[in-house]
Amino acid sequence: MEFSAVFPIWNKLTPQQQTDIRARLLTRKARVGEIIHNGNLDCAGLMLVASGQLRAHILSPEGREITIYRLFERDICLLSASCVMNSIQFEVIITAEKDTELFVIPPDLFRRLMDESAPMANFANELMASRFSEVMWLMEQIMWKSMDKRVAAFLLEEVSIEGTNQLKITHESIANHLGTAREVVTRMLRYFQAEGMVQLTRGTIEIDQTKMQVKKDGELLLLTLTEYKILVALIKRGTVVTRDMLLEALWDEGGKFVDDNTLSVHVS
Amino acid sequence: MEFSAVFPIWNKLTPQQQTDIRARLLTRKARVGEIIHNGNLDCAGLMLVASGQLRAHILSPEGREITIYRLFERDICLLSASCVMNSIQFEVIITAEKDTELFVIPPDLFRRLMDESAPMANFANELMASRFSEVMWLMEQIMWKSMDKRVAAFLLEEVSIEGTNQLKITHESIANHLGTAREVVTRMLRYFQAEGMVQLTRGTIEIDQTKMQVKKDGELLLLTLTEYKILVALIKRGTVVTRDMLLEALWDEGGKFVDDNTLSVHVS
Repeated sequence: MEFSAVFPIWNKLTPQQQTDIRARLLTRKARVGEIIHNGNLDCAGLMLVASGQLRAHILSPEGREITIYRLFERDICLLSASCVMNSIQFEVIITAEKDTELFVIPPDLFRRLMDESAPMANFANELMASRFSEVMWLMEQIMWKSMDKRVAAFLLEEVSIEGTNQLKITHESIANHLGTAREVVTRMLRYFQAEGMVQLTRGTIEIDQTKMQVKKDGELLLLTLTEYKILVALIKRGTVVTRDMLLEALWDEGGKFVDDNTLSVHVS
Repeated sequence: MEFSAVFPIWNKLTPQQQTDIRARLLTRKARVGEIIHNGNLDCAGLMLVASGQLRAHILSPEGREITIYRLFERDICLLSASCVMNSIQFEVIITAEKDTELFVIPPDLFRRLMDESAPMANFANELMASRFSEVMWLMEQIMWKSMDKRVAAFLLEEVSIEGTNQLKITHESIANHLGTAREVVTRMLRYFQAEGMVQLTRGTIEIDQTKMQVKKDGELLLLTLTEYKILVALIKRGTVVTRDMLLEALWDEGGKFVDDNTLSVHVS
């Protein structure tokens, strides 16, 4: 993968800036589970995911975790460069969820590029706004959604990420993503099994998507992060006037969500 | 108040940009309680608080509220211009908590200035990072703090904002700030009264700061948002090596927090 081909604002940089990046760009590999960025303890720089998957989480003083967002191929990690942005006054920990390859722009170069290039500064702005939006989504989930909906939405998001209904994930890991206790997740999964929505076997959770996404009393049971983003994007563009209209549109005649890719076409 | 004297990056703008702002800058007054910005329904622009106080909150589908941050004199409201930043995919409502006077840069001009000026884009970046940090603080409060500490921290923050120990605020209003039910707040306040930390009379809550800020079992009972920001700023600057050291430093010999202003001197 060529960095210049995947860095979204490459063509808006000056030839000199492009040369500087080429000269100092690093590549880095991380094994699954490895900590890539640890709050204020390091300053990795701006990272682009060439392959693999990253997870950003926060940690309570007692060691409880909650996932605040995840990054996939071609996503860019801004908070690993938070040391060069004074107003970012919080700490996140970023780990590799899969074996990962990264491009890294060193922090001092990233800072200089932001200072001299409006496109670079605006790009950083958009990146921060995206992460901010994901945290606001999470905040709304935590405040207004019951834990059963949060677990179900997480499982459906995992199915979409992994491309399989058979998830190899522990109850403890789900609890760490959602900021709750393992026992809560186990109880929820047993309830889902009783309802026929999942099948639990040793080390595997098999999801019946149709049953899990079904409407309940005419109301949409849940919206995954991806679906939520699409929804807001459509509302912002004026394509959709009300949420109800989109929720209606999201259901095809068979009574289940249309494919994410189909929706992406409408958004991009 | 002269806009040019209080807008932090005024001197980093070109003469032409300054002229454009002068030509199109608006002033706006809002009465206490008035909605200034309502999610995606309007696009007010970049606002600077000349006097008064603003509150940003989110709303659940059932009408529950939670305050995500507040803005005071000379603070700048970025999310009222979220319409010109595509990646901001969430909605906040901004209301006047006191009679407020605002300067407003219209959204199209703000967008143009960001596009052509790296200083302006970086300034927007820092603003967004500040709001993002406040939301992360709130997230940590919600996830890891019990409601008694959150109510106590809110009351102490109010005392600091209002400059008096006698707060005129309803239990319902506190509940809306914290995203909980009125009954929960009332129960908590009665417990605080039994502990001698507050005195409840009709329409007023009188706070005994010394009792409320006291250490409990040698552990710091709570940290208000302001104190937290100071703490993180100091850690980032390398002035303080560990949180424990600062927490130690924050207590004077009388066993209570030193004055916020004293601390601000160290930070700025």
